[in-house]
Amino acid sequence: MKATIVTIGDEILIGQIVDTNSAFIAKSLDRIGVEINEMVSISDDKNHILDTFSTLQNTVDLVIVTGGLGPTKDDVTKKTFCDYFEDELVVNQEVLAHVTQLIEGFYKREITQINKDQALVPSKCTVLHNQVGTAPGMWMKKENTVFISLPGVPYEMKYLVENEIIPKVVKEYKRPYIIHKTILTYGQGESMVSERIENWENSLPEFLKLAYLPSPGRVRLRLSARGTNKELLENVIEEYIVSLDAIIHDIIVGFEDEETIEVVIGQMLRKYGKTIATAESCTGGSIAALLASVPGASHYFKGSVVSYATETKIAVLGIPEELIQEYSVVSSEVVSAMALSAKRLMKTDYAIATTGNAGPTKGDGNAEIGSVFIALATPSEVIVEEHNFGQPREKVIDRAVFKSLELLRKEILKNVL
Amino acid sequence: MKATIVTIGDEILIGQIVDTNSAFIAKSLDRIGVEINEMVSISDDKNHILDTFSTLQNTVDLVIVTGGLGPTKDDVTKKTFCDYFEDELVVNQEVLAHVTQLIEGFYKREITQINKDQALVPSKCTVLHNQVGTAPGMWMKKENTVFISLPGVPYEMKYLVENEIIPKVVKEYKRPYIIHKTILTYGQGESMVSERIENWENSLPEFLKLAYLPSPGRVRLRLSARGTNKELLENVIEEYIVSLDAIIHDIIVGFEDEETIEVVIGQMLRKYGKTIATAESCTGGSIAALLASVPGASHYFKGSVVSYATETKIAVLGIPEELIQEYSVVSSEVVSAMALSAKRLMKTDYAIATTGNAGPTKGDGNAEIGSVFIALATPSEVIVEEHNFGQPREKVIDRAVFKSLELLRKEILKNVL
Repeated sequence: MKATIVTIGDEILIGQIVDTNSAFIAKSLDRIGVEINEMVSISDDKNHILDTFSTLQNTVDLVIVTGGLGPTKDDVTKKTFCDYFEDELVVNQEVLAHVTQLIEGFYKREITQINKDQALVPSKCTVLHNQVGTAPGMWMKKENTVFISLPGVPYEMKYLVENEIIPKVVKEYKRPYIIHKTILTYGQGESMVSERIENWENSLPEFLKLAYLPSPGRVRLRLSARGTNKELLENVIEEYIVSLDAIIHDIIVGFEDEETIEVVIGQMLRKYGKTIATAESCTGGSIAALLASVPGASHYFKGSVVSYATETKIAVLGIPEELIQEYSVVSSEVVSAMALSAKRLMKTDYAIATTGNAGPTKGDGNAEIGSVFIALATPSEVIVEEHNFGQPREKVIDRAVFKSLELLRKEILKNVL
Repeated sequence: MKATIVTIGDEILIGQIVDTNSAFIAKSLDRIGVEINEMVSISDDKNHILDTFSTLQNTVDLVIVTGGLGPTKDDVTKKTFCDYFEDELVVNQEVLAHVTQLIEGFYKREITQINKDQALVPSKCTVLHNQVGTAPGMWMKKENTVFISLPGVPYEMKYLVENEIIPKVVKEYKRPYIIHKTILTYGQGESMVSERIENWENSLPEFLKLAYLPSPGRVRLRLSARGTNKELLENVIEEYIVSLDAIIHDIIVGFEDEETIEVVIGQMLRKYGKTIATAESCTGGSIAALLASVPGASHYFKGSVVSYATETKIAVLGIPEELIQEYSVVSSEVVSAMALSAKRLMKTDYAIATTGNAGPTKGDGNAEIGSVFIALATPSEVIVEEHNFGQPREKVIDRAVFKSLELLRKEILKNVL
C-alpha cells in the first residue's frame, strides 16, 4: 500500500516556513504499514494542484493533501477538489453547527459569512470532522486512489490523522508489517562505523534494509523489515541486532523505537522516582526546554538556572567569584560547581550543567570557539566531560544538548542497575 | 528562472526526520529572484532518482539535490549522477587533500579507504568545495538544466549554498526581482482579518500577490511582487502597505523582512544598551533558549530561572510561599513577583515571566488547562496579561513564548520612543 503526501502553500516554496506536517503524517502511516513513496510541496495554484493529482492518479492508493483549506482567497484546495471530482460545494450541517458553536460559544463573537463558508464541502466527499478547528478534512475516492484533504495548521492536521485517517485506513485496507529498529551509536563517525560492520551488513537478507543516519557526534543505524509475518520479522531483526551488538558494543548507547531521548529520560526518571535540574550557560535553556516539552515533566523536572552571564553564575547559582577568576568561566571546576549548585538549590537527584563558547566570537573567559564543558551531578558524584564541537553555533548548542542528555541517560541506567 | 529542490533519503519518507534543508535553500534562492516551483522528497533508490531527474530535465533551470552523499552503502547520489550523465567517478586531488587534512589534522586519526572515496566525483562535474565537511558538492549541466548535489548535513549544505551556489547563480543567470514584505498582525483570526481588508485586497494589481499565514493568535500577511524594476516594485508595495495600515492599524504589530522576532529583539536591545532576563514556569526555558540562539546574545541576555516546580519558585526566585498559597501558583500576583525577582536577581532592564498550565492534565495550583499568565517587568512598571491558549501542550507553550516576545518588543519600542 502506497501513499504520496502533497503539501500546498507558497509559504513553503519561498522557505518562509518549514514543512513539519509531512514528517508527522509519514511517521503515522509508516507505523501502520503504509509506504510513503514521495512527498511533494507545490504552490497554491489550481492548475499546479490539478496536474499533480492527475500524475498521482492510480499510481498510489492514498494522496494526502495538507494546506490550502483556510477561509481566505489564497486557499484553493476545496475548489480544486470540486474541479478534479466534477463536484460542487454544499453546506454540511454538522460542520456548520460545529463552526457556529466554536465561534459563538468559545470565541464569543458573531459568526461571519467567511466562517460559515468553512462548512462548504464537495457534495461527494466523506467529511473528516475537525473537533479542534473550523476547517473540516475531506476523503474522496476516484478509481483506485483516495484523495484526502487536511488543514495545514499542525495540531488540526494531527487531530485528523490520529482520530479519523488512521482508524479509517486500518479498517479499510490490508497492509503489510513494517518494522523499524534504530540503534544509537555515539563517538565514531559514519565511515568508521561502516567499516567495522561491513561483513555484518553484507550478510543482511534482502528484506532487511540498513540506513545510516549521521548527526554531529552520533550515528543512528536503522534496520527496516517489511513482510506479512510480524513475528518472523521481529525475530530476524532481533537476531541481527544481537550479532551487531557483538561487533560494536563499545559505541552502542541505546535503541530508539518511537521515542526521543527526552521522552525516554522522562520515563526513566518517573519510573525510578528521581528528579532533575539544569544549570545552563552556553546551551541557554535548550536542555530545560526539551525536558519541559514532555507531558508530565512536572513529576521529575524541577527547573533550571540559565546562567548565561558570568554575573548570573555568581548571583543566582552562588559560584564563588574567585573560582571563576582562578579557572575561568569555561572550565571543569566551574561546570562542576554549577551542577552541584543546581542540584542543591533545586534539591534534585541529578543535575546537568553546561558552560562553553558556542561562537561565532570569543566571549567571557576567552574560551576557544566550540569548546564546551558538561557536568552531570549524580546522587554519588560529579562527572565532567570536555568537548570541542567546532562550529557553527547551532551545531555546538545542539551537540551540547544531546551529549548532556546521553550522559544523563547512561548514568541513570548505571545507578539503577 | 525556476528551480526544483529534491531531497533524497528514506529517513524523510518514514518521518524519522523533518526536512529543514529545503526551506533554507528555498529562502536563499528566493532572495536572489529564483522561483522554486516544487520540492520533492524521494527514497534512496537509484531508479527513483533517475526517474525524477528525467521528469525535471528541461522543465526547470536548476535541480538542487540534497542527501545521499555520505560514505556508506545507503548513499547513492554520486553513482546516480554518473549514470544520468554517462560519466565515471575520478579522484579529485583538491578534495582528497582537504579530506586528508580534516581526518588526520583535525580528528587526529588514520585516514581510511572510505574516507578517501569521498574525494571521488564524476569527471565532468564542477566541484563545489565543502570547507566544513568531507563530502563535496557537485554542479553538472545537461541541456538546459543544471543539477546540483549537496550533502544532507544541514550546516554543510548551508555552507555550500551561501559560499558556492548563490555566488555562482548570481554570476551566471539573469533573474527578476522578487520582493516579499510580511505584515504581522495580532489578536484577530484569519477570517476576521480577511473581511476587514476585502476591498483593499481586491484592489491589488496583478503582479502583487497576497498570502495569509495564520498561526495560533496571529496572522502574517505576505505581499509578494515580482518584476524587473526593483524600485518600482518597492514603491508599489510601500504604497499598498500604507493603505493597509490605515485599515487595520489596530492589529498590526510589526513587519518582518528576513528576521525572526528573537533577532529583532536582540538588535533593539543591543542598539539601546538594554538587558533582559526571564523567569519561566510553563514555557520551561523556551524563551531563554530562543533568546540565546542569537549570536551575540551575551550582550543583552543575562539568564533565566526556569522555575518549573513550585519549590523552585520559592527557593531560587524567592517568591513568598504565602503569596503562592493565597493566590495560587498560576496567578497575576505570582507572575508579577517572578518577573520582578528575575529583574532584581539578574540586574536587568527587562524581565519576562510565565506561569500557567500547558496541559494535558492539571498540575500544581489546579489551574485550568491552557491558562497562562505572562508578566513583563520594564524599567518603570510590571505589565501582566492573562490568556487561555487552549490545547494541545505544544501550542500553549508556543503561543506563550511568542506572545511574551511580542509584548517585549512593543514595550521596548514604547520606552525608547
